[in-house]
Amino acid sequence: MTVEDAIKARCSVRSYADRAVEAEKIKQVLEAARLAPSAGNRQEWRFVVVTDKNKMVQLAEAAAGQMFVSRAPCVIACCAETDFHEMKCGQLTYPIDLAIAIDHMTLRAVELGLGTCWIGAFYEAEVKKILNIPEEIRVVELLPIGYPADKGRPRKKRHDLDKIVFYENWGEKR
Amino acid sequence: MTVEDAIKARCSVRSYADRAVEAEKIKQVLEAARLAPSAGNRQEWRFVVVTDKNKMVQLAEAAAGQMFVSRAPCVIACCAETDFHEMKCGQLTYPIDLAIAIDHMTLRAVELGLGTCWIGAFYEAEVKKILNIPEEIRVVELLPIGYPADKGRPRKKRHDLDKIVFYENWGEKR
Repeated sequence: MTVEDAIKARCSVRSYADRAVEAEKIKQVLEAARLAPSAGNRQEWRFVVVTDKNKMVQLAEAAAGQMFVSRAPCVIACCAETDFHEMKCGQLTYPIDLAIAIDHMTLRAVELGLGTCWIGAFYEAEVKKILNIPEEIRVVELLPIGYPADKGRPRKKRHDLDKIVFYENWGEKR
Repeated sequence: MTVEDAIKARCSVRSYADRAVEAEKIKQVLEAARLAPSAGNRQEWRFVVVTDKNKMVQLAEAAAGQMFVSRAPCVIACCAETDFHEMKCGQLTYPIDLAIAIDHMTLRAVELGLGTCWIGAFYEAEVKKILNIPEEIRVVELLPIGYPADKGRPRKKRHDLDKIVFYENWGEKR
């Protein structure tokens, strides 16, 4: 599948087929994260792959009760083992680098026929308790992953390019 | 090009061919950003496409003197027009959502034969001055883009999967 097609096909999948994901496919998805770039090659990403149903139900509760999370065959808790390094631009490296790795995963998942959903609505302290994640680690996203049960919702409307792109100076249109 | 191949081929390109990038290709790259997912579909990303050589030299100086930035045919300043919304997990939406959009761009660029380089080492206030970016906007990354002059440096070594992946609980290996 081309990158263009994967970008066009990706959507938030909240309904999963009752079918396990092959371990090899999960590995391929994690491999896509592993190869991601990061500031100074810091690679602060860490992933906890969860398939235990009891834990998944707890994770769904920690995700503000988004119970679909527990109905995926697998949830990956995307974490950062970080020294909270700040780039010259003033941004912390870890949220950006985690997002790069996760985006790699979501696009590779599409190519493998899998669906995912970015979940940032969760209580971090709860998730840490469920997965025995140490205090100093940050949990940045939960990523359920599985075969989609259906085509997913149509993509939400996006701004036109004209609204988000300027030329040479802020606010300048072509 | 498959997603897998694009992920494997992507590298930080710091040396560009003396050749303009077709406007249509830049548009395709921006379109990849436009289609990215974001928390609550906030789409806080804004892009300033810079090809003016004088401005690019100033941007390179603002990027702690990384002069290769000015030798690309184009630099995209990746900005956030944000209300600094915090997700339940405690993360701000904008750095993560910008990173998703930029990752989409970098992978689509590879597919179009283009090279990019994530630049977080820049002085934001300087960049804002150069591009007339308002005070309240955040500049998250600079992204030079162009045809690579050579194959680029080999990818830096990554951790093995074994170091970054746990199963069911933090620290647990399979």
